[in-house]
Amino acid sequence: MRAGIVIAAWTLLAVALPVRAADGDKSMIAIAIHGGAGVISRVLMTEEQERAYRTDLGRALDAGYAVLEAGGTSLDAAVAAVRILEDSPYFNAGKGAVFNHAGVNELDAAIMDGKTLKAGAVAGVRHVRNPIELARLVMDRTSHVLLTGEGAEEFALEQGVALVPGSYFYTERRWQQLEEARRSDKVAATGEDIGYFGTVGAVARDRDGNLAAATSTGGLTNKRWGRVGDSPIIGAGTYADNASCAVSATGSGEYFIRAVVAHEICARVRLGGRSAADAARDVVHKTLVDIGGDGGVIVVDRNGELTMEFNTEGMFRGARDSRGRREIAIY
Amino acid sequence: MRAGIVIAAWTLLAVALPVRAADGDKSMIAIAIHGGAGVISRVLMTEEQERAYRTDLGRALDAGYAVLEAGGTSLDAAVAAVRILEDSPYFNAGKGAVFNHAGVNELDAAIMDGKTLKAGAVAGVRHVRNPIELARLVMDRTSHVLLTGEGAEEFALEQGVALVPGSYFYTERRWQQLEEARRSDKVAATGEDIGYFGTVGAVARDRDGNLAAATSTGGLTNKRWGRVGDSPIIGAGTYADNASCAVSATGSGEYFIRAVVAHEICARVRLGGRSAADAARDVVHKTLVDIGGDGGVIVVDRNGELTMEFNTEGMFRGARDSRGRREIAIY
Repeated sequence: MRAGIVIAAWTLLAVALPVRAADGDKSMIAIAIHGGAGVISRVLMTEEQERAYRTDLGRALDAGYAVLEAGGTSLDAAVAAVRILEDSPYFNAGKGAVFNHAGVNELDAAIMDGKTLKAGAVAGVRHVRNPIELARLVMDRTSHVLLTGEGAEEFALEQGVALVPGSYFYTERRWQQLEEARRSDKVAATGEDIGYFGTVGAVARDRDGNLAAATSTGGLTNKRWGRVGDSPIIGAGTYADNASCAVSATGSGEYFIRAVVAHEICARVRLGGRSAADAARDVVHKTLVDIGGDGGVIVVDRNGELTMEFNTEGMFRGARDSRGRREIAIY
Repeated sequence: MRAGIVIAAWTLLAVALPVRAADGDKSMIAIAIHGGAGVISRVLMTEEQERAYRTDLGRALDAGYAVLEAGGTSLDAAVAAVRILEDSPYFNAGKGAVFNHAGVNELDAAIMDGKTLKAGAVAGVRHVRNPIELARLVMDRTSHVLLTGEGAEEFALEQGVALVPGSYFYTERRWQQLEEARRSDKVAATGEDIGYFGTVGAVARDRDGNLAAATSTGGLTNKRWGRVGDSPIIGAGTYADNASCAVSATGSGEYFIRAVVAHEICARVRLGGRSAADAARDVVHKTLVDIGGDGGVIVVDRNGELTMEFNTEGMFRGARDSRGRREIAIY
């Protein structure tokens, strides 16, 4: 009996201790997800709401992890996770996306393959249930990276993607947020306006060491003029390179574009010899803060180490890897 | 008489010798422009055509330089140069832009301020004579970076920009290129298809040491699905940062997006301690070539050193600085 307990304790320790992938765990699998960052007040969120967010984050995380565990690719894992967050009404992507100034949902998404540096993205689509899947089709079936607006929907139809009516994306909560933003004549460009930036994303490392990043968003409440943020911009909100890391971002998109945040983190790892954790921390808490940017990033490096950094009150997030880590967090 | 010649020779030498700005010439002013890169055959181009291209490149270069010489900003100089190239029918930007699959001109442009890291861009506009000026308005008068399609034109109207009919952009040569591309059912995605990528751009350093980059394009002949290339993507086709350099790119845009070319060159200077010339050469001749990308870049570094690199047969380009350099070249 005593021996059994000792063995159990050792097993536990072996799972809990960080077995550094760099030291040999070449088949390390890992995935991180986010559901947006910003002012997320413990006071304003009911227990029930928090449970609902956590449930959907957990479903997305586990769906992505299951793909990796079954030997699937990091691209498939990232899409599986993001699709669930797009289908959840709680996050600002797909169903539950915010409304633009005209009361319409305009969706952006991007995906990148760290092995080939191939990428696909769509911006300003209005009738695509899962923009991340359309971004994947752009990557896999065209020589292009970014398709926009009605043209992107024409491409979707040619690929056999069924379009959905705009009303599919409607949620009462987002409509109220639009009315509030319209009353104050504000674009919800800061965390204070809207509570948080609900962009969703995933980064993953598969058994073969290939990295992927995926991001999907409805952008800003009350946005006008065909505004596009960082999510579908390769380098800004989304980047993946097996030589360094994979990054998905969420926050005040314009600042992420100006600092080319995702690529900057990868460049600091590749050129500057920094760890992904250090690079992410410096970029999120210094580079971004210096120019006034709010938000966060999730990062997976070539060894499968996961980093989640944000300079806001909270970031909906989750992490799971083959060392036994499984974590869902908000604050 | 003899003494006069010696003095003249010394003066000439003083102008011709590279007086390193790093060694004290803090007020060095410099500008470089490009009008696209690709297969530019000496055989196919008549003397008259070559003269016409050179004339308009020279006009753009000197207009930008005149702004700098009068103490103007690098932003104003870059816009002045790009506007002339947009108005010229010879380049694939503004008047003379290529046609998309539907026989329409869809224009993209971006500008970035190296001092503030502020940036503005537009994509898919159809009725804006000078997209670079609209990009400048996005930067100066909104909290956004990228506006697209009809929304961007709505913004233009609100800013008092007069729209022009689509027919303004028509040139017979571009229409023939579209018909040819349609016959072969090809998107002109490679240099071979179309002769060259005619995207235009400028980079400049002003007296105060501030850098700027500007890029404008009509994209690809016969493009579909609202395809957007690298030109309006901050980091890919356009980037400026006083801490490193300013870059404007031209070429097979998708590859420039995937390698985040403009930001990559700046990152190698800032993080890797490389010269801008070395960084540009490595990225254009190695990074881009490795993934199959064609094209080139113009770069100005913080000291005013100008670099023009391309991995294609030619690149329409020009360079001028306060050391007396003035150069227009194609091959």
